[in-house]
Amino acid sequence: MNPFWSRHVGTLTPYVPGEQPRIEQLIKLNTNENPYPPSPRVIAAITAQAGDGLRLYPDPQSSALKQALSSYYGVAPGEVFVGNGSDEVLAHAFHAFFVQDTPILMPTVSYSFYQVYCRLYGIEAVQVALDEAMRIDPDRYRRPCGGVVIANPNAPTGLALPLEEVERIVRAQPDRVVLVDEAYVDFGAETAISLVRAYPNLLVVQTFSKSRALAGLRVGFAIGQPHLIEGLERVKDSFNSYPLGRIEIAGAVAAIEDEDYFQRRRAQVIATREQLAGQLRRLRFEVLPSAANFLFVRHPEHRAADLAQALRERAILVRHFKSPEIETYLRISIGTDDECARLAAVLAAIIEG
Amino acid sequence: MNPFWSRHVGTLTPYVPGEQPRIEQLIKLNTNENPYPPSPRVIAAITAQAGDGLRLYPDPQSSALKQALSSYYGVAPGEVFVGNGSDEVLAHAFHAFFVQDTPILMPTVSYSFYQVYCRLYGIEAVQVALDEAMRIDPDRYRRPCGGVVIANPNAPTGLALPLEEVERIVRAQPDRVVLVDEAYVDFGAETAISLVRAYPNLLVVQTFSKSRALAGLRVGFAIGQPHLIEGLERVKDSFNSYPLGRIEIAGAVAAIEDEDYFQRRRAQVIATREQLAGQLRRLRFEVLPSAANFLFVRHPEHRAADLAQALRERAILVRHFKSPEIETYLRISIGTDDECARLAAVLAAIIEG
Repeated sequence: MNPFWSRHVGTLTPYVPGEQPRIEQLIKLNTNENPYPPSPRVIAAITAQAGDGLRLYPDPQSSALKQALSSYYGVAPGEVFVGNGSDEVLAHAFHAFFVQDTPILMPTVSYSFYQVYCRLYGIEAVQVALDEAMRIDPDRYRRPCGGVVIANPNAPTGLALPLEEVERIVRAQPDRVVLVDEAYVDFGAETAISLVRAYPNLLVVQTFSKSRALAGLRVGFAIGQPHLIEGLERVKDSFNSYPLGRIEIAGAVAAIEDEDYFQRRRAQVIATREQLAGQLRRLRFEVLPSAANFLFVRHPEHRAADLAQALRERAILVRHFKSPEIETYLRISIGTDDECARLAAVLAAIIEG
Repeated sequence: MNPFWSRHVGTLTPYVPGEQPRIEQLIKLNTNENPYPPSPRVIAAITAQAGDGLRLYPDPQSSALKQALSSYYGVAPGEVFVGNGSDEVLAHAFHAFFVQDTPILMPTVSYSFYQVYCRLYGIEAVQVALDEAMRIDPDRYRRPCGGVVIANPNAPTGLALPLEEVERIVRAQPDRVVLVDEAYVDFGAETAISLVRAYPNLLVVQTFSKSRALAGLRVGFAIGQPHLIEGLERVKDSFNSYPLGRIEIAGAVAAIEDEDYFQRRRAQVIATREQLAGQLRRLRFEVLPSAANFLFVRHPEHRAADLAQALRERAILVRHFKSPEIETYLRISIGTDDECARLAAVLAAIIEG
């Protein structure tokens, strides 16, 4: 190992995000971005911040954004934490809650960044298998542990866990933090924010990158009881006083305020998803029922890696993961109707040959 | 301690930034912000990014910014690391290099966030005393250690260490990383970037918050040999793939490209600083020779805390630190000529009473 590095640095296996290539006429269905632009009110709010005020530090508490989120979700501002994308929020949460004497629990198939955080902070993790239908089984999370992290809907399966089942996991671990990562919740699952008041161990994390169409802005947040938020704030204020700039705060507030736009766009994505799911099933794909802005699919006669490569040659990017549990699947982000129609046509040509 | 927190969370003493109050007609000389706005080219670049593209993730490598910084400083792109303000860059550097079996060395008086990072990552630190003139003495850094961090110019003294003396510290610790935090270097000190090629253990950190007038945007960077940058990237990619959004990358690139504006504004700040220093000396203040965008001053007959309070009552904010080594001093950020004239007049009225 490099002699200048801290010991743990040599053991890290960084997360590899979906690629952001510059290909002409690319149909980019590989990183679960929103196919629609952010609200015009967001653009106006950002433009209004692009001025002399940028010479000044932002509010280190991002109070305006905490206020907007607290009104929107019906919680107190002291029950809201914000950060530079939900990845930063998750990193702080792992550091604040999961450095324990017993391993944390997470599904075998989930957002692969969770295991990366564990290595970064020296956290042991036990992978809990999904059931035969690729679902999270709450009964498998009733065992001594240092905490639990699940994604709901899960990634990359897209499957949602009903709220009662999330609650069963939270109830089974009264002494440990149960982190529910709801990056995709707005596309069809039920948020656990309504349970926060009842459970001191529940932390819900969401992002502006997907349903709010702001992946390029970098804003995420967590909602939990004040004692959990305080743990996060202590870590954040020991790391970086100002993770959100003036532009991020203003843009995110405007996104929350434009409820009409949000509802309209998310309904469009859901409608396109259901249409594409039908088209793919007609091409004999197995399509997991998705509550997210992507589909997780496989074909009985075509290897996923080959399909991904064939699509790439036709300037369509989808995501293929090499880990053994899911290597037979493709994850396809929902694009516009036109993009999804093109995808379906290209897949039909490949499959019907 | 809260039963849900990781053990270390209870031991953290978060950094407390200078306040960002909303007071009418305030003269804000407490957080070392630039009194002048960012370059108009920065504003134009940011405005150009405020559009549909925000739905897409940014480049996780921030390649355009690394390219701009590498051209500007005459280093390779692989010798540049960027992050969400220099605070985040420093945090990753402490995590990547300073978790060692021996304590790191830092000056007793310096940026107080360094000690906060140490607690966050379980790093032991030894405080090395300044000399009688409040200067960093390189000879005191010749001892076994896990690494060295200094600020040059130092904060909050504003005193610059000549480049040969920085080099002596770097040479004295060939097996450990020497981190030189140059947040204020553009206001009168000499950067150690020219030494990076010669020393595999040197890491230089800078920020866009001060000389580039972009505290509200959140961009910082580090320059060092590729093996140190790789250590930082491994930590960063295990924490947050996208610390800089599309707007931050574009704005920072434009700031680097507008060299004329940068040189003009920084000369203005330096000229105002020297004028204010003269005025304060005439009021019998002891004024440390500053290479930064602030002055560190004390008065033989007036307690610093009292002066800070009296100024606050007249809507002028300066910074007073309570730690014993420096409680007799005030740190005054350099404002516009008008703001500094007003400060000098108010101080004259208080002192000549």
